Amino acid sequence: MIKAGIVGASGYTGGELIRLLHAHPEVELTALSSRTYSGKRAGEVFSSLRGLDYQFEDLEPEVIAAKTDVIFVAAPHGVAMEYAPIVQAAGKKLIDMGPDFRFRDPGLYEQWYKIPHSCPQLLASAVYGLPEIHRQEIAEAQIIGNPGCYPTSIILALAPLLEAGAVVDGFVIADSKSGISGAGRKADAAYGFCELSGEVRPYGVLQHRHVPEIEQELSYLAGAKVKALFTPHLVPMIRGIVSTVYAWIKPGYSEELIRSLYAECYKDEPFIRLLEAGSHPGTKAVAGSNYCDISINFDPSTSTAIIVSAIDNLGKGAASQAVQCMNIMFGLEETAGISGLPLFP
Amino acid sequence: MIKAGIVGASGYTGGELIRLLHAHPEVELTALSSRTYSGKRAGEVFSSLRGLDYQFEDLEPEVIAAKTDVIFVAAPHGVAMEYAPIVQAAGKKLIDMGPDFRFRDPGLYEQWYKIPHSCPQLLASAVYGLPEIHRQEIAEAQIIGNPGCYPTSIILALAPLLEAGAVVDGFVIADSKSGISGAGRKADAAYGFCELSGEVRPYGVLQHRHVPEIEQELSYLAGAKVKALFTPHLVPMIRGIVSTVYAWIKPGYSEELIRSLYAECYKDEPFIRLLEAGSHPGTKAVAGSNYCDISINFDPSTSTAIIVSAIDNLGKGAASQAVQCMNIMFGLEETAGISGLPLFP
Amino acid sequence: MIKAGIVGASGYTGGELIRLLHAHPEVELTALSSRTYSGKRAGEVFSSLRGLDYQFEDLEPEVIAAKTDVIFVAAPHGVAMEYAPIVQAAGKKLIDMGPDFRFRDPGLYEQWYKIPHSCPQLLASAVYGLPEIHRQEIAEAQIIGNPGCYPTSIILALAPLLEAGAVVDGFVIADSKSGISGAGRKADAAYGFCELSGEVRPYGVLQHRHVPEIEQELSYLAGAKVKALFTPHLVPMIRGIVSTVYAWIKPGYSEELIRSLYAECYKDEPFIRLLEAGSHPGTKAVAGSNYCDISINFDPSTSTAIIVSAIDNLGKGAASQAVQCMNIMFGLEETAGISGLPLFP
Amino acid sequence: MIKAGIVGASGYTGGELIRLLHAHPEVELTALSSRTYSGKRAGEVFSSLRGLDYQFEDLEPEVIAAKTDVIFVAAPHGVAMEYAPIVQAAGKKLIDMGPDFRFRDPGLYEQWYKIPHSCPQLLASAVYGLPEIHRQEIAEAQIIGNPGCYPTSIILALAPLLEAGAVVDGFVIADSKSGISGAGRKADAAYGFCELSGEVRPYGVLQHRHVPEIEQELSYLAGAKVKALFTPHLVPMIRGIVSTVYAWIKPGYSEELIRSLYAECYKDEPFIRLLEAGSHPGTKAVAGSNYCDISINFDPSTSTAIIVSAIDNLGKGAASQAVQCMNIMFGLEETAGISGLPLFP
Repeated sequence: MIKAGIVGASGYTGGELIRLLHAHPEVELTALSSRTYSGKRAGEVFSSLRGLDYQFEDLEPEVIAAKTDVIFVAAPHGVAMEYAPIVQAAGKKLIDMGPDFRFRDPGLYEQWYKIPHSCPQLLASAVYGLPEIHRQEIAEAQIIGNPGCYPTSIILALAPLLEAGAVVDGFVIADSKSGISGAGRKADAAYGFCELSGEVRPYGVLQHRHVPEIEQELSYLAGAKVKALFTPHLVPMIRGIVSTVYAWIKPGYSEELIRSLYAECYKDEPFIRLLEAGSHPGTKAVAGSNYCDISINFDPSTSTAIIVSAIDNLGKGAASQAVQCMNIMFGLEETAGISGLPLFP
Repeated sequence: MIKAGIVGASGYTGGELIRLLHAHPEVELTALSSRTYSGKRAGEVFSSLRGLDYQFEDLEPEVIAAKTDVIFVAAPHGVAMEYAPIVQAAGKKLIDMGPDFRFRDPGLYEQWYKIPHSCPQLLASAVYGLPEIHRQEIAEAQIIGNPGCYPTSIILALAPLLEAGAVVDGFVIADSKSGISGAGRKADAAYGFCELSGEVRPYGVLQHRHVPEIEQELSYLAGAKVKALFTPHLVPMIRGIVSTVYAWIKPGYSEELIRSLYAECYKDEPFIRLLEAGSHPGTKAVAGSNYCDISINFDPSTSTAIIVSAIDNLGKGAASQAVQCMNIMFGLEETAGISGLPLFP
Repeated sequence: MIKAGIVGASGYTGGELIRLLHAHPEVELTALSSRTYSGKRAGEVFSSLRGLDYQFEDLEPEVIAAKTDVIFVAAPHGVAMEYAPIVQAAGKKLIDMGPDFRFRDPGLYEQWYKIPHSCPQLLASAVYGLPEIHRQEIAEAQIIGNPGCYPTSIILALAPLLEAGAVVDGFVIADSKSGISGAGRKADAAYGFCELSGEVRPYGVLQHRHVPEIEQELSYLAGAKVKALFTPHLVPMIRGIVSTVYAWIKPGYSEELIRSLYAECYKDEPFIRLLEAGSHPGTKAVAGSNYCDISINFDPSTSTAIIVSAIDNLGKGAASQAVQCMNIMFGLEETAGISGLPLFP
Repeated sequence: MIKAGIVGASGYTGGELIRLLHAHPEVELTALSSRTYSGKRAGEVFSSLRGLDYQFEDLEPEVIAAKTDVIFVAAPHGVAMEYAPIVQAAGKKLIDMGPDFRFRDPGLYEQWYKIPHSCPQLLASAVYGLPEIHRQEIAEAQIIGNPGCYPTSIILALAPLLEAGAVVDGFVIADSKSGISGAGRKADAAYGFCELSGEVRPYGVLQHRHVPEIEQELSYLAGAKVKALFTPHLVPMIRGIVSTVYAWIKPGYSEELIRSLYAECYKDEPFIRLLEAGSHPGTKAVAGSNYCDISINFDPSTSTAIIVSAIDNLGKGAASQAVQCMNIMFGLEETAGISGLPLFP
């Protein structure tokens, strides 16, 4: 059994990790670290976990490294980079749900997150944990920067087009709609039920921190700089992201040809579901699962591809994707513990 | 024009008062007091009020009394009793949305709200602002204790039965379901969208602060002590309360007879709608309005009446009821400014 | 008093018209026509209208024309064109909430709605009922094609840019998010609560019937053909549309200059609210009202303007906009009966 | 591997059974029968099941009996009694999610469901499938009448009190609040998103078909006739039931003593979670799981116990409870395939 620990286990991503790892056939949860909830039982932090024996503790990095084989950090930016050197020295693995290890360029991190990176020397060997793009490197990595939720949905929507060199000019638009859990579990009147039920609203227009991560990976796929205009929106549901992505396609591509690029690119992927023409991805079809659903639409009169993807932001956008990475890192069946079907309705 | 002011204007009840008084044909809003939002325009506190000229200020009681004919206090308990003596001295009127002037017995207030009452001498002349029960006294009052939302729904459900002396033993059960806005506008993770969407849960079982108010008024109506078992529940909607009230009926009453008690009691009430047999009150039918819908059900085999009422907790349960009281106090048409139909769907 | 009738009064738009016209100071509702609900009282069709005296009837066009000064048709496409010749002959006015009188070109209507237009000779004098664009013509019109909900939000978002000739190439993208009431009131399992709560999903991609109407009006404003790529999405709320519109701007425009175009264009409009930089329109701020909120964002590196607008699809997107047209047609105060503030929260 | 089939697999309970049985380590799904969806793949009926190989067929009872070891009937009342004799003759097992085999008395069935029972001779050996009450009989049964959702929540709330003989007079009140999925998946305008979002409303007051089932089992537990007054309410969420149950307690019981009755009665139950004083069950804590959460409250002044229970109506109230019964019937680990933690948030 792999011994796993979670740092920052009291948030929504932490809770989803507990749900998944508790049921994982090859994993034993040996440490739940939380400063705020130290001393509490799991059921006191999440009513859904009533009756489970887990205890939240306030553990030092060295202690949690000693008790585990792999540590999931589900804490704000800046935390994982405190753990990484210690975890590495101990020969353990770390999967950061935050941004500390998503960037190859520490300058980009510092520009967007406004703090210096404390261990830039680890960035070169850290891997961006999107298995569909970086599976081989994940298998050999010790430190994973698990992708952001929006970037996961956008990169998977565009990868086949960019890899094929089909996109004009390296410019795309991503208009994303996210459930509220993406904002985390926090005491903020603006995220109250009455403020958000019935509300759709964009936010962070032209300024969202997921932009550099999106552009890094799209540029990697294209082999050239890609500019992404990204507009996130809050929508009144708990889980799920739908990204509607607009890209302009070079001459010579029909909808059929585009469709075949996706079929080929994702033919062995257990968690990508390509939809038939006329069907569109929705958030309910992926809720609680690791699936990413994708539909392909093409307007020949303007050469615009409209690719729509849907994921569970806490699933493929966070926790279950992290478990997928863990499975790959430890040589387990890649779907172990994350093959549960979506909860519907 | 009547000059009206609101103390604590930044909460949900305050916002609803602004919406109603802004459109009231006989009222001019001359003061919006808020400590937290002093200096803000209305549109910065409520996005719905963008474009309006109102400004929030931090006003001393004397100042606001000087600028207004009537003050609505939409603030936590303890605030209105600071304003009341000043308002009274200035010959103005005060309508408290909180509990400070709901009780005839200051001991009851102190027992449930855990602070001494600073002006118990004003309680004798203050009136419980439920027009269907106390219309005449409201017309002559200077200080109104506007009823709580749950009490409004429960007292109106039971008044005809209690006035007729039809209830056995002075014991009733009220099982109430409330939208989340009843909890106010506050930064509390437990009231976040993700915590409450999909959640139904009782709270404050056997301990809710509305119990003494319910029992005071039910006992007044019955002319004898009435014990009320009250179980409030949160349900995942913004506005509305449904109270399902169980009472045991003395021999000799049929459903028809009970129904006729209600018809008689409420025959001239502009805001009470009695439903036909087989129809049941729901929250959407009253949303945004001052209506109280009531259905009457009777099980002869156990002599149990099941009376169901529905109100908008921010409407008849708070702001529009306060305006109804104001209309009565100033001799206006009772429905002025509060005859808007519910917003549906 | 203006005598008004509604055809198809039992749907959501019909219900909203009843709510508004019932409270309108200059209007008397003299006919509610519905084939399905003929013989029912208003409260049997809408629980919110309990207690009102209105009766639904199945009225022939001649009869309803005789009883009214203005008829609102809130029925599927094809119905209004049966009424229009009769209404015109009777010298009365007609406001169609459907598409029958939105197009100048009957061929466009027939191409998208798949039926022949039965009175194409009336199209030339019919007016597209968007007051901010066609106020003068509305004042003189006998027949109004009230705009679709999506087109209203998109046209108002773009009008200042197009009128100024600031948009490159006549190509725009509109990514819209709509509440479920836009789909109407119908018995369809796919629109059940459990199917749509928690669901965000695009639909009608590249095929939505609002496209020709959007392009007609954008082209009118630009004085040249404008192509619009339109992607509508369902989101789990009842009312509201947010449209996020992407347009490419000619050299020489800064965000400040763009902002000033909007300020100038809409400076006298009572229902357009321009937001400050950093604020974004949301559906709750306009719910139940006739407002359209607009924010302006500009990315100089790609010369992309991102204009976001929010309306209530049943308000400015349907019923209250129709009342605004009626006010203009009858020479009333333009805001009469539709100045109610949004219901919040 | 146990071969399982589902009749009526296209509804919400059918879908939940597919989700659970697909992941069950000891079960193979060998037949999905549906008249309406015959010929469709699973992903065409439930978007959540995209990519799975299951095919819906229209199968005769004999055929499905031949292909399976156990049949789950998730169809309206009247269907299971067509299958039962055939299944029994074939030596297979049947679990009916409907009411056909819940009653010991065929007259009760016929009185409430208005059709004659076609195989009353099977009722004596059929077992009411509530493991906490009838585990031993379930183990030996061939035909199970799986309990209704409301009855599950109410019976589990009261069992310890009734078994102990603590309840006065055999009279209880159950005030229940249910998510919308309890009404099934149907094309009915009254269950549309816009009609129910924001709505709380009682229905079926004094007339709900779950009453006889509740009274049968409560009377069984008490060893005497128990009368139950049952008031169900719709609340705007997808899954979950909270039942607030009022019972009057004989002299001599304190809250502590009552609490100890529950602790003793449920001490070995894997799916019952008793809450500490001051905590209350909510629907989110059990969503997607087989848990039943229970809280115990007692008012000594009126000798009233207020017991609150929460379940997922599609889980412990239907599908996962049926799987629990299946596990018992086949001698499997009772928690096999249904130990997944609730999905939160």
